[in-house]
Amino acid sequence: MPSVSRKGQQMPESPIRKLVPFAEKAYKANKTVYHLNIGQPDIKTPQIAMDAVSMHSLEILAYSRSEGSEGYRTKIANYYKRNEIPVEADNIIVTTGGSEALLFAMGSIADIDDEIIIPEPFYANYNGFATASGVKIVPVISKIEDNFALPPISEFEKLITPKTKAILICNPGNPTGYLYSKEEIKTLAAIVKKHDLFLVADEVYREFTYDGYEHYSILQEESMAEHGIIIDSVSKRYSMCGARIGCLVSKNKQVMATALKFAQARLSPPTFAQIASEAALGTPQSYFDNVISEYEQRRNTLIRELQKIPGVIVGVPKGAFYCIVQLPVKNSDDFAQWLLESFDLNGETIMVAPAAGFYSSPGVGLNQVRIAYVLNEDSLIKAVNILKVALEQYKG
Amino acid sequence: MPSVSRKGQQMPESPIRKLVPFAEKAYKANKTVYHLNIGQPDIKTPQIAMDAVSMHSLEILAYSRSEGSEGYRTKIANYYKRNEIPVEADNIIVTTGGSEALLFAMGSIADIDDEIIIPEPFYANYNGFATASGVKIVPVISKIEDNFALPPISEFEKLITPKTKAILICNPGNPTGYLYSKEEIKTLAAIVKKHDLFLVADEVYREFTYDGYEHYSILQEESMAEHGIIIDSVSKRYSMCGARIGCLVSKNKQVMATALKFAQARLSPPTFAQIASEAALGTPQSYFDNVISEYEQRRNTLIRELQKIPGVIVGVPKGAFYCIVQLPVKNSDDFAQWLLESFDLNGETIMVAPAAGFYSSPGVGLNQVRIAYVLNEDSLIKAVNILKVALEQYKG
Repeated sequence: MPSVSRKGQQMPESPIRKLVPFAEKAYKANKTVYHLNIGQPDIKTPQIAMDAVSMHSLEILAYSRSEGSEGYRTKIANYYKRNEIPVEADNIIVTTGGSEALLFAMGSIADIDDEIIIPEPFYANYNGFATASGVKIVPVISKIEDNFALPPISEFEKLITPKTKAILICNPGNPTGYLYSKEEIKTLAAIVKKHDLFLVADEVYREFTYDGYEHYSILQEESMAEHGIIIDSVSKRYSMCGARIGCLVSKNKQVMATALKFAQARLSPPTFAQIASEAALGTPQSYFDNVISEYEQRRNTLIRELQKIPGVIVGVPKGAFYCIVQLPVKNSDDFAQWLLESFDLNGETIMVAPAAGFYSSPGVGLNQVRIAYVLNEDSLIKAVNILKVALEQYKG
Repeated sequence: MPSVSRKGQQMPESPIRKLVPFAEKAYKANKTVYHLNIGQPDIKTPQIAMDAVSMHSLEILAYSRSEGSEGYRTKIANYYKRNEIPVEADNIIVTTGGSEALLFAMGSIADIDDEIIIPEPFYANYNGFATASGVKIVPVISKIEDNFALPPISEFEKLITPKTKAILICNPGNPTGYLYSKEEIKTLAAIVKKHDLFLVADEVYREFTYDGYEHYSILQEESMAEHGIIIDSVSKRYSMCGARIGCLVSKNKQVMATALKFAQARLSPPTFAQIASEAALGTPQSYFDNVISEYEQRRNTLIRELQKIPGVIVGVPKGAFYCIVQLPVKNSDDFAQWLLESFDLNGETIMVAPAAGFYSSPGVGLNQVRIAYVLNEDSLIKAVNILKVALEQYKG
């Protein structure tokens, strides 16, 4: 029997995958499970996007252009311009989710064994795309004590080698909720400029900023025109995770020509989803105002309730809808499994994402979990109370 | 300015990409262009699939499962069983087009510099996925004189090295239209069994067989249970190229567990397209009967007309909707460009795909083109007449 590739063996599992059988066990035991473990918002998709698909008049569901339709890309460019990001349709390739944009970016800028520096903890699937691309992730540790602020320049410079091709950030951050300041972006710009690297920014949570803070994009930095690559997606912005539409944005022509070859090989992004995504660009500002205000309240509630639990440490996220929570446990994998398998409070329990999967440094984050505040406030209050009681009972 | 990866530089361009500017020039000159160059059928998508999307009642366009929904996978398994391919839902991962299934398959079975043997000419994008995966394609030449039949076993065995991981076939074949016989599949099965390789079969044109010939799948061969991987897609079957739904099928549990990790990294296949694809499985047999009969007539017309042209050699394809045509020209790239740029017959011309891009052996196929018979019979007759007159005038 032929065996699978080493690369395949090295592909990481999703941090929550091994919990799934225990979640299924919990359902079978009729427990109610509050899902704090995934970034699937409970927010309704804008009606304008759903209606555009319902009212489609296609007779043949044909390939679109590999780079996405001219019309849609022009509208995306206008969206960026409204967000003070000066790009044109030519600087945009429509991808199958932000996932594919990451894959195209890594393939376009890095060869086998090349290195990409990423502040950790980071979005777990960066590991998967790096393994699939044969690229090595070099983590630079950001700390919960600093609320996950950008590590000092010296920490980055220590890690730069001839194989370093890029620094990759997620801003606002999954899983930390950290929002980089304009000054921090300028610092990163200076490092990549000095060492002739790319700066890749996953900005899919751009709109999700709180306390009046504003997102500052890497492409608002003029010096990043040739260095910057934005990864974007409609998934979170319009609660359209299932569309699988994202884009790769860069003003570097060589990068765009290269990414386009990857795009051509897979023919085109999905047509129905592009119809929905193009229509979604017409979503009124009131939709976002409501959504952001809802998330801000959820965050306030979640953090307030978490801070009441003895031994729990949590920063205050300024963006996205996640936070990393440090718990008074030794092994959050074990704790998360125990929550599903052996614990309930009046028939209810919670599912959280153990944080070790968001670090590539071994042994780091073992006492942390990621919580996504994608549930309504009442559920969040109940869920945090369950966590509190569970921590009292857990022997670990 | 940082530069792109060597891998990115090596990514091949689509065989027709460099013709696109000349096609645009032809449109500007008000020429009518008959597109024989792409596999985008003009056949209507089954209404049942389009209606399922129109009538969707989703409020949140959420992620689906990474492997595709249980319901859809069960229905696909039933489709295979009807086609005498004995697989279950567990043997299926739903992918974003056949493209992604190919990428997952290559990543799951081959490491950097591993080799996959492919009879050439082959579907040009195999080159792209191989480059993206760092895998080396080793071509075994099938010849137009033999109507592209399977090369002798000895030709394969000459090419097998310790780095060989798989043989990949497309059956029925793009770009040749060749349909492997049951005996040929058994021959391939014996080779991969003997050398402990995988046999990957791109069977996306399964239904498109003519003259009463029947498709024989690699998974109808019991001995291929651990060796066989089917690449499939709804694109051609239901004229749903823009859905971007395919699947990877294997009874090898290690392959499935590995491919699933690639699937998890990209989260999920597109939701609307899965709705359409699931509904499409209810397409009545009469739809296929009409489509196949239409393609068979087109093929007959195309081949009959082509054979009338002096110096043109064309085999009779038994499946899919392409054929490789040998022309009395030295360089079909140049000829294809000339057709768009410098020729017209009463304001009309044709666009064909130069065949060199379907070979990985350098210098082979230079006097060949691929023709897709995705136009109606009248258009095909006109198009072949244009080709005839063009060949008379072309000085090359």
